Amino acid sequence: MRIPYDTMLAEFRRVFSKIGFTPERGKLLAKLFAENMRDGVYSHGLMRVPSFTRSVLNKSGIDPGAEPERVGTIGILEQWDGKLGPGMLNAHACMNRAIELAKEHGMGCVGLRNTNHWMRAGAYGIQAAEAGYIGICWTNTTQLIPPYGSTEKKVGNNPLVVGIPRPNGQHVLLDMALSQFSNGKLDVYRESGRSLPVPGGYDSDGNLSYDPGDIQDAGRPLPIGHWKGTGLAMVLDLVGALLSGGRTTYQIACDPTEFGVTQTYIAFDIKSISGENRLRDLVDETVADFQDGSTIEGEDKATYPGERMYRTRTENLRDGIPVDPVYWNQVLEI
Amino acid sequence: MRIPYDTMLAEFRRVFSKIGFTPERGKLLAKLFAENMRDGVYSHGLMRVPSFTRSVLNKSGIDPGAEPERVGTIGILEQWDGKLGPGMLNAHACMNRAIELAKEHGMGCVGLRNTNHWMRAGAYGIQAAEAGYIGICWTNTTQLIPPYGSTEKKVGNNPLVVGIPRPNGQHVLLDMALSQFSNGKLDVYRESGRSLPVPGGYDSDGNLSYDPGDIQDAGRPLPIGHWKGTGLAMVLDLVGALLSGGRTTYQIACDPTEFGVTQTYIAFDIKSISGENRLRDLVDETVADFQDGSTIEGEDKATYPGERMYRTRTENLRDGIPVDPVYWNQVLEI
Repeated sequence: MRIPYDTMLAEFRRVFSKIGFTPERGKLLAKLFAENMRDGVYSHGLMRVPSFTRSVLNKSGIDPGAEPERVGTIGILEQWDGKLGPGMLNAHACMNRAIELAKEHGMGCVGLRNTNHWMRAGAYGIQAAEAGYIGICWTNTTQLIPPYGSTEKKVGNNPLVVGIPRPNGQHVLLDMALSQFSNGKLDVYRESGRSLPVPGGYDSDGNLSYDPGDIQDAGRPLPIGHWKGTGLAMVLDLVGALLSGGRTTYQIACDPTEFGVTQTYIAFDIKSISGENRLRDLVDETVADFQDGSTIEGEDKATYPGERMYRTRTENLRDGIPVDPVYWNQVLEI
Repeated sequence: MRIPYDTMLAEFRRVFSKIGFTPERGKLLAKLFAENMRDGVYSHGLMRVPSFTRSVLNKSGIDPGAEPERVGTIGILEQWDGKLGPGMLNAHACMNRAIELAKEHGMGCVGLRNTNHWMRAGAYGIQAAEAGYIGICWTNTTQLIPPYGSTEKKVGNNPLVVGIPRPNGQHVLLDMALSQFSNGKLDVYRESGRSLPVPGGYDSDGNLSYDPGDIQDAGRPLPIGHWKGTGLAMVLDLVGALLSGGRTTYQIACDPTEFGVTQTYIAFDIKSISGENRLRDLVDETVADFQDGSTIEGEDKATYPGERMYRTRTENLRDGIPVDPVYWNQVLEI
């Protein structure tokens, strides 16, 4: 079942208006959810709308009316308090603020505390790139990954995003959790009975495994790069919490559910810094060389970060966005 | 064979003075090389001194007298030209400049172009942490890693560093190349006939391999996280080149040897931003929780980034620094 982008956007706007968002905030929420679907990030689109709606109506963890507030300024770095409002709206506001700071100072940085799940991390890298800025951002999460040699989850998968604008609109977008596969992706492989393309964790005998079920049962998903990924997760967590005054992964995990997470937003006014022609030429040249690499028989050619997204976006805008009718009907019934 | 730290430092100072460095620059170079050895980073210490000396004497790639110069300012971001001077001195000067900018503006950023190998990446994270600042820096390199599914090396291993100061002096230090194992590390395993602890690349049949020799023969070392690590390498390369006006990995690889690389330095005045007590408590709590994780039989307990370095430093300052007599004698003969 495929739904046209405009139909989905209108339906999401209706839902968010109905559950009490102001027109401006409801419109932005609907746009972000619909764009995640348009770009193929189905794990953070339609299927999250019913549960998001329930959280808002039950006032469980998300305060729909809360708006982020600036609570500190240290030089060009600003600290904002998300007041446990909707994570997508807080995230959009803080990347916007980082861009404003970058417009004035060449670069800007915002530390955000007390916010909620921002859904698709890459959305805020795209936001910066579409404004013509380099955007770098990351979030922490609760404890999801055991350190190397351990069976206890200690660090978050702390998604990291880097968006680099290209004048042709096909921006480079790295959107990367620090686990090799998200739990949702392991679910997808498990349900379809497929093996992972590369090892995704350990089984309960302590062997590296391609079996999503064995990995989930053992509770040992793999970070990228083994000890390297957990190290990176730890320092992103600490830097974010120190810049914003927010909670660390350890502190978030002291509560039974994940809320009140911590994020960092950095923007660079790259057209002023580098010049638009150099920006275009340098990125084009690197992307072309990357795509040019010889490939192993049976593999797709190497794809640069963001490339598959643009292919999916083109398809989905042309043919409609694939949806699970269960979730689509749930949304229609709200 | 073990050499006391002070003896090594004095010997390096003698060498750099003899080959024409001014007292101040020779002293700093000697300190950086000796500290790399003190902290157990033997791959970027003594064994590099003879080849570094030859490069300086032959004027091949390194101009010993060149000092970095500020060539642009965009808001608070500065661009510096390393003029192909010694990479360690350029790196130290630019992290220092980022710290000065952070002192004034909360954060600082320096893009450095036309520089050379900085030896141990972590040295400049330690530099920031010892000054009480969070330091983030990375360098690009020539093409060293093939993208996922490809046999052609296209991205650098672009080491990334994050240093976080702790009042007790046991700073958190992530110092991480984006390859799972450096080529030097593969050499060490290969020479000792040992298998790698985790897969380090592909063999020539296209299978993931624990055999360092097979991986080197196939020329397919693994990035951290497969497609994720090459994506991260590409965006770090592009961001660095765009901020500094420097060369990309692709451009560096057009020359037969690696020189004229590009680096980025970011510092945060974290004591002013977060307060010293919070800095101490937050990092202590996260580190303690990380170390507390249960471990698999036979594995060391989980170690946080930088922990092993401090253990090695303590041993080496007490017992002397282990050296390969071949390299030590080469240095004595200069």
